[in-house]
Amino acid sequence: MAQTSTIEPRAGTSTKWVYLFEEGSGELRDLLGGKGAGVAGMTRAGLPVPPGFTITTEACVAYYAANNEFPAGLWEQTLEALATIEEKVGKRLGDANDPLLVSVRSGARVSMPGMMDTVLNLGLNDQSVEGLAKLTDNPRFALDAYRRFIQMFGRIVQGISAEQFDHVFDQAKKRAGVTEDPDLSAQQLREVVEEFKTVVRRETGADFPADPLEQLRHAIRAVFASWMGKRAVDYRRAEKFPDEWGTAVNVQAMVFGNMGADSGTGVAFTRDPNTGEKALYGNFLANAQGEDVVAGIRNAQPISAMREHNPEVFAEFERYAAQLERTYRDMQDLEFTVERGKLYMLQTRNGKRTGRAAVKIAADLVEEGVLSKDEALLKVEPRHVEQLLLPRFDEQAKAAAESEGRLVAKGVPASPGAAVGEAVFDPGRAEERARTGARVILVRPETSPDDFHGMIVSEGILTSRGGTSSHAAVVARGLGKPCIVGAESVQVDLARQVLTVGERVVTEGELISIDGGTGEVLMGEVTTVEPNFAADRELQQILSWADERRRLGTWANADRARDAERALELGAEGIGLCRTEHMFEEPERLPFVRQMILNAAESRRNPDAKRLYLEALDKLLGYQREDFKGLLAAMDGKPVIIRLLDPPLHEFLPKYEDLLVQVTEMRVRGQDGPELEEREGLLKAVAVMREANPMLGLRGCRLGLLYPEINEMQVRAILEAAVELTRDGKHPHPEIMIPLVGDIRELRRVKEQLLVVAEAVTREAGADVDYKFGTMIEIPRAAITADQIAEEAEFFSFGTNDLTQTVYGFSRDDAEGKFLGFYQDEKLLANNPFQVLDAEGVGAMIEMGVQKGRATRPDLEVGICGEHGGDPESVAFCHSAGLNYVSASPFRVPVARLAAAQAAIRSDKS
Amino acid sequence: MAQTSTIEPRAGTSTKWVYLFEEGSGELRDLLGGKGAGVAGMTRAGLPVPPGFTITTEACVAYYAANNEFPAGLWEQTLEALATIEEKVGKRLGDANDPLLVSVRSGARVSMPGMMDTVLNLGLNDQSVEGLAKLTDNPRFALDAYRRFIQMFGRIVQGISAEQFDHVFDQAKKRAGVTEDPDLSAQQLREVVEEFKTVVRRETGADFPADPLEQLRHAIRAVFASWMGKRAVDYRRAEKFPDEWGTAVNVQAMVFGNMGADSGTGVAFTRDPNTGEKALYGNFLANAQGEDVVAGIRNAQPISAMREHNPEVFAEFERYAAQLERTYRDMQDLEFTVERGKLYMLQTRNGKRTGRAAVKIAADLVEEGVLSKDEALLKVEPRHVEQLLLPRFDEQAKAAAESEGRLVAKGVPASPGAAVGEAVFDPGRAEERARTGARVILVRPETSPDDFHGMIVSEGILTSRGGTSSHAAVVARGLGKPCIVGAESVQVDLARQVLTVGERVVTEGELISIDGGTGEVLMGEVTTVEPNFAADRELQQILSWADERRRLGTWANADRARDAERALELGAEGIGLCRTEHMFEEPERLPFVRQMILNAAESRRNPDAKRLYLEALDKLLGYQREDFKGLLAAMDGKPVIIRLLDPPLHEFLPKYEDLLVQVTEMRVRGQDGPELEEREGLLKAVAVMREANPMLGLRGCRLGLLYPEINEMQVRAILEAAVELTRDGKHPHPEIMIPLVGDIRELRRVKEQLLVVAEAVTREAGADVDYKFGTMIEIPRAAITADQIAEEAEFFSFGTNDLTQTVYGFSRDDAEGKFLGFYQDEKLLANNPFQVLDAEGVGAMIEMGVQKGRATRPDLEVGICGEHGGDPESVAFCHSAGLNYVSASPFRVPVARLAAAQAAIRSDKS
Repeated sequence: MAQTSTIEPRAGTSTKWVYLFEEGSGELRDLLGGKGAGVAGMTRAGLPVPPGFTITTEACVAYYAANNEFPAGLWEQTLEALATIEEKVGKRLGDANDPLLVSVRSGARVSMPGMMDTVLNLGLNDQSVEGLAKLTDNPRFALDAYRRFIQMFGRIVQGISAEQFDHVFDQAKKRAGVTEDPDLSAQQLREVVEEFKTVVRRETGADFPADPLEQLRHAIRAVFASWMGKRAVDYRRAEKFPDEWGTAVNVQAMVFGNMGADSGTGVAFTRDPNTGEKALYGNFLANAQGEDVVAGIRNAQPISAMREHNPEVFAEFERYAAQLERTYRDMQDLEFTVERGKLYMLQTRNGKRTGRAAVKIAADLVEEGVLSKDEALLKVEPRHVEQLLLPRFDEQAKAAAESEGRLVAKGVPASPGAAVGEAVFDPGRAEERARTGARVILVRPETSPDDFHGMIVSEGILTSRGGTSSHAAVVARGLGKPCIVGAESVQVDLARQVLTVGERVVTEGELISIDGGTGEVLMGEVTTVEPNFAADRELQQILSWADERRRLGTWANADRARDAERALELGAEGIGLCRTEHMFEEPERLPFVRQMILNAAESRRNPDAKRLYLEALDKLLGYQREDFKGLLAAMDGKPVIIRLLDPPLHEFLPKYEDLLVQVTEMRVRGQDGPELEEREGLLKAVAVMREANPMLGLRGCRLGLLYPEINEMQVRAILEAAVELTRDGKHPHPEIMIPLVGDIRELRRVKEQLLVVAEAVTREAGADVDYKFGTMIEIPRAAITADQIAEEAEFFSFGTNDLTQTVYGFSRDDAEGKFLGFYQDEKLLANNPFQVLDAEGVGAMIEMGVQKGRATRPDLEVGICGEHGGDPESVAFCHSAGLNYVSASPFRVPVARLAAAQAAIRSDKS
Repeated sequence: MAQTSTIEPRAGTSTKWVYLFEEGSGELRDLLGGKGAGVAGMTRAGLPVPPGFTITTEACVAYYAANNEFPAGLWEQTLEALATIEEKVGKRLGDANDPLLVSVRSGARVSMPGMMDTVLNLGLNDQSVEGLAKLTDNPRFALDAYRRFIQMFGRIVQGISAEQFDHVFDQAKKRAGVTEDPDLSAQQLREVVEEFKTVVRRETGADFPADPLEQLRHAIRAVFASWMGKRAVDYRRAEKFPDEWGTAVNVQAMVFGNMGADSGTGVAFTRDPNTGEKALYGNFLANAQGEDVVAGIRNAQPISAMREHNPEVFAEFERYAAQLERTYRDMQDLEFTVERGKLYMLQTRNGKRTGRAAVKIAADLVEEGVLSKDEALLKVEPRHVEQLLLPRFDEQAKAAAESEGRLVAKGVPASPGAAVGEAVFDPGRAEERARTGARVILVRPETSPDDFHGMIVSEGILTSRGGTSSHAAVVARGLGKPCIVGAESVQVDLARQVLTVGERVVTEGELISIDGGTGEVLMGEVTTVEPNFAADRELQQILSWADERRRLGTWANADRARDAERALELGAEGIGLCRTEHMFEEPERLPFVRQMILNAAESRRNPDAKRLYLEALDKLLGYQREDFKGLLAAMDGKPVIIRLLDPPLHEFLPKYEDLLVQVTEMRVRGQDGPELEEREGLLKAVAVMREANPMLGLRGCRLGLLYPEINEMQVRAILEAAVELTRDGKHPHPEIMIPLVGDIRELRRVKEQLLVVAEAVTREAGADVDYKFGTMIEIPRAAITADQIAEEAEFFSFGTNDLTQTVYGFSRDDAEGKFLGFYQDEKLLANNPFQVLDAEGVGAMIEMGVQKGRATRPDLEVGICGEHGGDPESVAFCHSAGLNYVSASPFRVPVARLAAAQAAIRSDKS
């Protein structure tokens, strides 16, 4: 490398602030910023990059340390680097005959909104513009470049509002009687330039700087200043990036793609970012500048068009693309310009891609010998896997619907996936319509167990009220159906059987489309695309590598045999949570469930009530035995954690408010008789059971302590099912989970009562069944006293939903509807803690629980079964907290498999 | 001491199992049990105690270790000790002419239910009973003693049911045609004895043991066995006493108070246990056995009667009483028997006493030079102090009312003290009646802010629903008014304005009496006694000693100037919690509070709503400024912690259910028009604000983040009040408390907003006001991240009510009504954790919070302001956790002063 192409600190200044591109490298991202490192890498690799230099991030830091003054040596080094460029290009900045023009760009370690945009064409002034005009023989081109430069410099460097320039430009077009920019003549542009300079004089009180070096100094200062701009600072606060990073400044010789038919510009991905197919994918635009492509001013052609346009240049570009992919070991997103037949590479970076493409590219790069499996696993994002598992709207169909104004509301995304169907407002009607083969979306203000038969036949559910733990949301996730809740702009009028959004009214039978992953509600049909997991060769490949690599087990939350089968297909190694209450909600059982509930307390005193209570329990025993038999059979040989009845019993009864209205109406109407008496009786019973804060009330093990018969029935059903399966040669592994324990005495008592039942069943049958008793750790006191609790519990399952509620003092139902959105908007919370585990608070409780529990019982089986089990960040936490497994909704099991592998790889690296 | 009176282990056995009374001492309670140590102490002090010996608790432990066999040497040492007694008394066990009789009693370290009762008269058989008859010249006495012995031995030692003996005895009386026991003749008793022996033979398959040594061995075994009896074991589990303690066995020569006119028996306290007056207090019964006094078979005379009966013996007894008081340095509870003119002391122990007596005795014993101040402080129990601070029922009046069947219901004690007044069912009527000078008890199903004007004029409050954190309970405690909630057997019919309990119906104006400390509801008037704290010389004396000794500050929770003044009288050193929401509930303000609430959210969009919102805030600013001025003036120079608005806003609005019924009624009746519209509008507004779990919903700092104007108004009012007082030469110290913080970002944001206001007010006024910002630590996440939170908080106040709710996952309202009672009955919880701080769970969070908070800010001021601040056990925890102060209801401040002193003394000792 020539002597002149190294910038050395001068005597008296010891720091190197400026790096020529050929002095930098792709690894110096911290010092040169992402952009600077990228062009340095390409330059070093011998690719044709317009020459330039990068002022380091350290210079920015020094600038602030010196009270917004350039540190000693910076300007001298800048001038020296500039001279080197001038020499390479053979032009001089500000030369009246053959001027060098440069671009100035900011470039921090990571791309950051609020940082300075690009200033192009720096170096133009009244003299050099004439030189450029002569040289290119194109005065219009030169003047257009000059007016663009003044406009960008004025706006970005001098802080003059864009409107000031736009106004002048619009007036000029009006005067000229034209509507498009290119229709202005050179003379008209010359007038615009003069008027722009007047704007600058008016706004800054000084002439537009004619001295190119002054232009450059100002531009560099402006880049530094943008680092402490409000948007950039806010962004760093939110993302927890330190101010001390600083930004680099990139100065680069301009090249022009709009110099005639032998020029052009383009962007391209080295592989198809939608499908992952190994072929260049992008656009080329002849005789155009890069910004024209981005702005879509003219229709770009596919990149293949470039082959015909200039086969040699295209071949050169193909070579560079392959080289860069090899260098960066990933699919690249490239920018380039062809100036008079010469190709210049302007940018390379890892390209963004769809889930489909991410999986295929990662798998292909391993096959091509470019990546190791570990590296490939880190290239696929968990959300990419999720994309591949859900029905989704066809992109084009959705874009079309949006452009037609059919996107009418946005609710809380409660269960992902896209669905289309007739709006139906009544669960009975939903059943009727479904029976005729219609696809149905059940629309309700909110749902209750009474609506279950309608939910199960629907394609998706939409409610206007409730949060992500409302009945609708929880049931829909359990059923794996798309669901949107709390769509507050949607009015559901059950009396009229219509929904209203703004001016639109939808009656029963009209089609609507919902996306439970985004919360979007669209009128009419939007075509959906269905995934095929089993046939997805590349995804299966990636997940099998993930399975080899992960330490965490991946289990699923499933309540029914069919959910368990689905979970197995998706790679579940066990059931981490079977919520038995969902079994209680099926329509043929609800009457017995209610009979049980309404007689439970009274059964202690009243023989009639006791008879009804036991009769209901006996009936439910039969149902439950079959439930558990199905589930355990489906999971043959694998562990199945079954949680005993958990929710407050009043959740299975009609709503108090509904009964109150019914009774009031009947009373006012003077309707006496047995019907009123029945309703009044029910109202009274429900009134007694109502709770101020049901989440913290009579539920979980507290229920089982007051009404042991319910637990006993469930445990009998579980063990009888296991005994029958054992006789059939199967290997059931039920694990019985006692919920909401806060004190060892609760667990000990319940376990004592249930061991008696379990032992009786197995002894009677003479069968040897492998079962365990354990507990959920879901309230802080259980974590705090986990050493005691592990004396009785053979396994722990962290119920992170309830644990988050109690550790934060947030009721999820209320918080998500009332203030969590505000908290996230205002950056009072980084994430919704019900989606991403709060490592600092809830996580600290989990770590305490694991450590104390294992201190008592070193082989304690520990997992989580909250919704966090399917969140990648939370899975990483579970890995580092030493859990044995995570349990998630079936469709999130593949996500958890990948996330668990990534956590293992990353923790091995660190 | 004679050679014979020392029991030494024989050769080959190294353990001393048996202690003669003269070998023991009052300090050997662990080895000899409480009873054994007591008689040993009296014996060693030279008092006339019937001779006897104690088998040690270690012998009991060894007995169990040896699989229910006497350990080697035990029986031999027993026989040796027995021989010593025989020698002293000059009689031999089982002697046919002059038999020694002994009693056998259990005696553990602490008195314990379920342990073996006493067996008296052991040593009688068919021969010795004749000797006793001859010797006493009273065959009837001897045979009665024999039949009692067989009965006791059969029941207690041999486990034969009491009914078996009672049946025989009843038949004998029937045959004899008598109804009273003493009317049976000697011959008839002889027949009873024979039949009793037949019962024993039938039930045990063996003859009643005639050999006195066999009787003794059986009795000793029975005492040992009773240690592992179910009731005793259950009791130890609950009280956490270890099984390893074992019980001692006391064997003592019998003396008889029923040997004629020169005999008698009695019990006496060395000082009056009701008043503490220094004079013997008790009963004497001539010619009677101790059990007759206890059983109340004959009317006992006052102890002074003994003086006339036998002046020398009385003088001797007085001497012993004084001596024992000096020895044990406390008021003693004594039992004695006079046998043929000779006084025998049977028992001495510290006597139980009322609060009045406890305080006077402790103060007197210091003055008498018997106790140090520290010792005196430990002699007074905190509940004694509480007794002296409350109006209470006159004991006799209450006993009379009970015997008349006027005690009709028991509810949840929610705020202590006794009150009498006319039952009134409407708050407006309560005001009217109170204005005429009537004393009123407000009776409601439950209360709401709408009822406040009625509550404030009432003597007490009674509700049929709700728990100890219901509106009624919290407000009543704040007002210091007696209150019972959740009296479920009381039906309140607002429509008919009556309450019904069983068959009784109370209409408006009828007198009822309530005791908020016990939850008792009585019909009619029960006379009450009022305390006079300021004039209570002895209590003031004790508390001033406590103040010298304690390290913890004692602050009070008070919302109004008059409560603060009361708190100051009772010794409060600061206000630890002013709940500003209570200020909002006053009737003239409620309309503005509602105006503020109903326009808060809408004010962001709608200028009309904004005007109404700001107008309401401005109005409330005026009220609040005066509130705070009064409070800060009352507490001049002392810290006053003011909590910003905390409860969910819907608590200030009418209840949803009430509105729903109103609107439904109006709709069914076809009542159109503005009234319906107004109600429907309100219903809709309340519906939007309803919450599934309000305790975990939009409240605390979350409110202030969404509606900063409310906080700003409150802080402005506080600072403006402080500025005005400062100008008047006062020294206000407001400390502004931001509630329900769970993350440092919440606190930082709120504090930033409020510092602006605080600084503006003081800057405008040019005044220098001393104020602080701090937070409540009341959700687990705040304790876990206390190191971060202390970066912004200048003080912490642990809100132990909410912290207990979140750490346990208990909603207090629901738990107390639905399962906490069951939990306590079933020993699933030792205490109600809302009354006694749960050291293990909640306490661990507090310790973590203190430690982390002080790590960041070593001078952090830390206290608690939950109701636990007035509970002695919780105060002791706060002392050892290193808190700066506890804050309690004003009337519990003296309790806290004593409890804090006791904690300091005990921790110095340990």
